[in-house]
Amino acid sequence: MKKNLAELFGTFCLVLFGCGAAGISGITSTGPAGIGLLGISFAFGLAVVVMAYAIGPVSGCHINPAITIAMLVAGKIKTGEAVGYIVAQFVGATLAAGVLYVIQSGAPGFMMAEWALGSNGWGPGYLGAYSTTSAFITETILTFVFVLIIFKTTAKWSNSGMSGLAIGLTLVLIHLVAIPITGTSVNPARSFGPAIFAGGKAFQQLWLFMIAPVIGGILAAVVWKNVFDDTTEASIKALKAEIGIK
Amino acid sequence: MKKNLAELFGTFCLVLFGCGAAGISGITSTGPAGIGLLGISFAFGLAVVVMAYAIGPVSGCHINPAITIAMLVAGKIKTGEAVGYIVAQFVGATLAAGVLYVIQSGAPGFMMAEWALGSNGWGPGYLGAYSTTSAFITETILTFVFVLIIFKTTAKWSNSGMSGLAIGLTLVLIHLVAIPITGTSVNPARSFGPAIFAGGKAFQQLWLFMIAPVIGGILAAVVWKNVFDDTTEASIKALKAEIGIK
Amino acid sequence: MKKNLAELFGTFCLVLFGCGAAGISGITSTGPAGIGLLGISFAFGLAVVVMAYAIGPVSGCHINPAITIAMLVAGKIKTGEAVGYIVAQFVGATLAAGVLYVIQSGAPGFMMAEWALGSNGWGPGYLGAYSTTSAFITETILTFVFVLIIFKTTAKWSNSGMSGLAIGLTLVLIHLVAIPITGTSVNPARSFGPAIFAGGKAFQQLWLFMIAPVIGGILAAVVWKNVFDDTTEASIKALKAEIGIK
Amino acid sequence: MKKNLAELFGTFCLVLFGCGAAGISGITSTGPAGIGLLGISFAFGLAVVVMAYAIGPVSGCHINPAITIAMLVAGKIKTGEAVGYIVAQFVGATLAAGVLYVIQSGAPGFMMAEWALGSNGWGPGYLGAYSTTSAFITETILTFVFVLIIFKTTAKWSNSGMSGLAIGLTLVLIHLVAIPITGTSVNPARSFGPAIFAGGKAFQQLWLFMIAPVIGGILAAVVWKNVFDDTTEASIKALKAEIGIK
Repeated sequence: MKKNLAELFGTFCLVLFGCGAAGISGITSTGPAGIGLLGISFAFGLAVVVMAYAIGPVSGCHINPAITIAMLVAGKIKTGEAVGYIVAQFVGATLAAGVLYVIQSGAPGFMMAEWALGSNGWGPGYLGAYSTTSAFITETILTFVFVLIIFKTTAKWSNSGMSGLAIGLTLVLIHLVAIPITGTSVNPARSFGPAIFAGGKAFQQLWLFMIAPVIGGILAAVVWKNVFDDTTEASIKALKAEIGIK
Repeated sequence: MKKNLAELFGTFCLVLFGCGAAGISGITSTGPAGIGLLGISFAFGLAVVVMAYAIGPVSGCHINPAITIAMLVAGKIKTGEAVGYIVAQFVGATLAAGVLYVIQSGAPGFMMAEWALGSNGWGPGYLGAYSTTSAFITETILTFVFVLIIFKTTAKWSNSGMSGLAIGLTLVLIHLVAIPITGTSVNPARSFGPAIFAGGKAFQQLWLFMIAPVIGGILAAVVWKNVFDDTTEASIKALKAEIGIK
Repeated sequence: MKKNLAELFGTFCLVLFGCGAAGISGITSTGPAGIGLLGISFAFGLAVVVMAYAIGPVSGCHINPAITIAMLVAGKIKTGEAVGYIVAQFVGATLAAGVLYVIQSGAPGFMMAEWALGSNGWGPGYLGAYSTTSAFITETILTFVFVLIIFKTTAKWSNSGMSGLAIGLTLVLIHLVAIPITGTSVNPARSFGPAIFAGGKAFQQLWLFMIAPVIGGILAAVVWKNVFDDTTEASIKALKAEIGIK
Repeated sequence: MKKNLAELFGTFCLVLFGCGAAGISGITSTGPAGIGLLGISFAFGLAVVVMAYAIGPVSGCHINPAITIAMLVAGKIKTGEAVGYIVAQFVGATLAAGVLYVIQSGAPGFMMAEWALGSNGWGPGYLGAYSTTSAFITETILTFVFVLIIFKTTAKWSNSGMSGLAIGLTLVLIHLVAIPITGTSVNPARSFGPAIFAGGKAFQQLWLFMIAPVIGGILAAVVWKNVFDDTTEASIKALKAEIGIK
């Protein structure tokens, strides 16, 4: 239960900080310049850095159903626990989107614009107007890379103190690449919350953000198990002996 | 006494760097582009990162009355000590605002504009012109989340070397979300210093920044004690055994 | 083999994130401001931070032929292994550029502009329009400094947990200086991938990015061996005794 | 000798990265937006982060005469050694400014503009056009705060692995505040190098950047010795016992 609460709180914070920064501070019409795509990228990624150190020791800090499913495929979490995690993630994301909806409704000219809640999307009218194919490939490949990096930085040989930083910075990088294409999801729960409140096109396009990240995550788990996972005691010793510069 | 001096110096630096960056470098009319909302967010948050490593080992680096009150409610600091901390925090913030006032008075066209000292505020004429309700909810919820993350990252199970980084980055995130709404306070002392020198609307609106962050901090302490705090030896062992990926 | 796969994956991620961010998010015509030179700099540098913690323990995380050749000159890697690393780096960079080509072809008005794939270059029509001499000096000196810092931060006396962060931040700094001059390479593989798909001027100017970084890397190895390398047990002890402030 | 070479290399890199980023990438007329005041701030500060891990274990990474003089006043370095450090710092900064001069002379329309080499200055025609009094106070107070934070984060009780990060981030903060006022020096060597090549006003205004940072550094050493320094074994034990949240 405590682990599910941690996942709920972590996903709540991810959406509150990430989608909040995008919708509230992405663009400003008066005063200093808005945070732009760079600031939005830092908001999502640093939220993961922070939650990794806040709830990582409790739940492992998945805060993303695609990661939980990948962990399930890799045999690092049990089915029952995975279901609890995923439910908690969707609830946390939805609560955060609700809080943002209430706060944003106190802004002049608030019209439930998709962008106001940081919704994902693609195609004509959405930022760079990329095609559906580009959107699908982008979300799949970036989630694949994201989850593979998570497996690598949290492997037994890793410097665990820096793992949270490395994983969060990976999400910064993913956003630096993909916001003009899809707004960057790689996380079904993060897309679900804002889409519920934004409705319209954000809701109609939700399917891609439910499917593509999960495919990417499963692919990463399969590649990890069959290609990179090699953390027996003997192989770790051999690795350490071979590494000259570290 | 040494601890109070540390809190005074820490809060002095928070306001000097955060409000200084906002007022002096937020917007520039010549040369390179001003630091914008992203730079202001980094200024406040990185100031906490730095002070966590500079004075954290001395006083715990609260540098925020809302955090000190939350620590008091959670039973982590005694009443007498808390009073000393809070006085030191208000003195430090006021001294820093005074230094900024002197420096800013040497700028051409300096008119004690609210923004020149990084004052907080809301409503018509203040950045995004959000409503009082939005401002109050935002300050309360963000302080709640901030203090809860502080409790979590400094819990016995945490990687203490990275706590200062995680807590400061949380303040970056809070600023990335809330500057258009309130200028972002979550800290009564940080709002008090500039308001004393700016006067006018900044002073009239000071009440919200005295009340909302304290409510948020107290809520966090109550939730922490009743829901998340579970750091007996036995529960830590159990947690470690359960965590597969860390 | 596992080490070559790690180098391939690492260089793939460097180009995917770095060149992807530059080509897709560097400039935006609608919505929030593009990531600009600052965001592009963070994309390349943080990619190295992440890969240092992801694959550093496996292969040492060179992901750059200039670094591998410098390590060879310094006697830290064997010739056969160096050849495998370099082949893997070129393959990884080319695969990433191919993925970016596919994704970018789904953008409206995509014309295989050089910038769309983050290609390097210089001279009239390329950003700051710097001369060939400036470009050559810049790439040589920055690679020299980069590799010397790598030798220093990974020396036996170093705080190895922070080395990956320091090395990646060095690449951020190198990009903050040199993008207007050459787009910043300091890495033959990173230039090769996009040039293959962009063709034209990017391909014609590839020679400089093959030669200058390698010269800089070899110079750094020679200086390191003859001037700075002094990591016998005795000298480390002497150093520690002498250092007052650390 | 090795320590002097480290200081020379460190100061060379500080000026190469900091002043290079300011002069070459601060503003761009084509392509992505220039790095602005935020990027320049990161360039100077992250250069210190990197050098702290690269040469910190060798020389302590002063790379700033004001810091070396403060260390001398605090009794942490001997006079002869301090002289060697300071000479090395001025030589390193001058070499870097020379390299930047050569690179910048290959840019179209290069006219030895002060900004092209990242020179410091103040008053009419220099960014925010602040007064001499503001400039002097700013440089003195910011160096005072900088050096005091250095003493604190490198005290015996500190988490030494994070000190380099904290100190470098402090320099980011100092730049976020002061670029519109003086271009931010807090370092006589950093101002000297560019002024030699830029000449004119940059050279005439050099006196302030020789005097104010040194006064600030000496004040910090005096305050540290008399107010904060208390690192006997007994007091450390007492401190640890008192700290509840860390």
